[in-house]
Amino acid sequence: MSGINIEELLTSCAQLTQTALERCVRPSDARYGVIHDAMRYSLLSGGKRLRPFLTFEFSCLAARNNGVDPDSAMQAALPFACAVEMIHTYSLIHDDLPCMDNDDLRRGKPTNHKVYGEANALLAGDGLLTRAFGVAASNPCVDPSVTARAIALLADCAGEDGMIGGQVLDLLGESEKYDLSTLELTQALKTGELIRCACLLGCYAGGASEAVIEAAERYALGVGRAFQIIDDILDVEGDEAVLGKPVGSDAQSCKITFLSHMTVSEARDYAKRLTEDAKAAVSALEGSEVLCELADYLLTRQK
Amino acid sequence: MSGINIEELLTSCAQLTQTALERCVRPSDARYGVIHDAMRYSLLSGGKRLRPFLTFEFSCLAARNNGVDPDSAMQAALPFACAVEMIHTYSLIHDDLPCMDNDDLRRGKPTNHKVYGEANALLAGDGLLTRAFGVAASNPCVDPSVTARAIALLADCAGEDGMIGGQVLDLLGESEKYDLSTLELTQALKTGELIRCACLLGCYAGGASEAVIEAAERYALGVGRAFQIIDDILDVEGDEAVLGKPVGSDAQSCKITFLSHMTVSEARDYAKRLTEDAKAAVSALEGSEVLCELADYLLTRQK
Repeated sequence: MSGINIEELLTSCAQLTQTALERCVRPSDARYGVIHDAMRYSLLSGGKRLRPFLTFEFSCLAARNNGVDPDSAMQAALPFACAVEMIHTYSLIHDDLPCMDNDDLRRGKPTNHKVYGEANALLAGDGLLTRAFGVAASNPCVDPSVTARAIALLADCAGEDGMIGGQVLDLLGESEKYDLSTLELTQALKTGELIRCACLLGCYAGGASEAVIEAAERYALGVGRAFQIIDDILDVEGDEAVLGKPVGSDAQSCKITFLSHMTVSEARDYAKRLTEDAKAAVSALEGSEVLCELADYLLTRQK
Repeated sequence: MSGINIEELLTSCAQLTQTALERCVRPSDARYGVIHDAMRYSLLSGGKRLRPFLTFEFSCLAARNNGVDPDSAMQAALPFACAVEMIHTYSLIHDDLPCMDNDDLRRGKPTNHKVYGEANALLAGDGLLTRAFGVAASNPCVDPSVTARAIALLADCAGEDGMIGGQVLDLLGESEKYDLSTLELTQALKTGELIRCACLLGCYAGGASEAVIEAAERYALGVGRAFQIIDDILDVEGDEAVLGKPVGSDAQSCKITFLSHMTVSEARDYAKRLTEDAKAAVSALEGSEVLCELADYLLTRQK
């Protein structure tokens, strides 16, 4: 028994993130119409806050293995954690739009365009993406050279050769029956790149050595891929009430997933191997217990 | 006679910008689908490149009034100029989408979603916005503190309290009959903020003094507002073949414009006063002749 209660840690990190995100987009103002409300609606509607958690944990890991105070590393990680979560949120808003996945429900609530209309939802997504870079650029706790490096990485991971590239390939997957290697590229880009970004931004905030950055890259690869496989399994076997979104949507849209290429049992074994590799990447580093627990937790999650 | 041929200068700046933008988004790659093509289609389809021109001119103005070499200031301005133009282009792609203005024609060519479909056009816009920040963050010619300051300004000017805020108000203008002061706020945000950003980023690149920054703010205010008034007039009196887009679209969508509040002749007088104020803001500075010529040129433009 590790004595780590990962759910408690996730909840406490989610609260910290929520408080910080509250300050990233100001409350509504009658002169400006609904845009602030629409941005805050999706940004503050909960979610696991997994990416911020990764940013915080890697900032601590980097600090501990570098003789830096973990608390100041976490302070430095906060704007980066918020930026990653804002980019994640914008991608969900745009993904849910009628011209994309056309989803009505997200985290148990009506999707952004169902509440604010398509045009405002489009602009709320644009606003969150834009503000994410503004928040990352205004980090008082790191050297400006770290800020510039962090923003370049954010743009690479979220851009046309990262998350957006993955979304384009994902759309193709509804019409073309592509193979496992294309599916793995799609998922590596669509989900994996932002998870990788979250880990690396934590490293930057904590002044990580090359060894810690390499460990973060390998951890992110394993956890990111396992995460997507579990997502695919939950879309088949999950509980709609627990998930907060409909199950069976992949099958309904004839989307290619890992389960188009293997059985549920094979997919679980694959996710388990990826999780073990992620843990092996960080286990030799001081203070990596939480990251190892997190990898196991994500493997067995129900939502 | 000033001896300045502003059209020649604009053309030469547009060529420089085009070459630089070509390098901002790599050519298509079969593995990634159409995203790079869709981004390049709109980004490289011409346009006045007014915003990059302003960035370059203000970098030179700042440099000249600060004893810095204007050529190295322009080098430093190049990534910022590209970033502003990429943000301008993304805003046009999203503005043209069916859920927004639903336009079929832009710069004499089919709009992005007419060529690539709605989902890809949405993602191409997202991609250009994201890449803009990546390009701005990778500016080798300025100190990282300038980069961070530039990105914070870009996000403010393009975000929910800037351009996006203006787009939300603009949408309201199709349903609510708002007054002149709300129209001026709408236009100041929607068009003005990115023009202001273009001018100020040039100042940052050229290491401008406070006096030059103040002049840039005032110049941008006058030119930005006059620009929008002329746009409104061209939508009534313009030549579709010269403009490259349909005229009469504002009237068709019952959109509130400056011409909802004044006659064409009054609007021209107003634009003229704003132009004079813009020129007065910079005229005392060394090397401001081109900026003065540009303000006059924008007042009499036919497209």
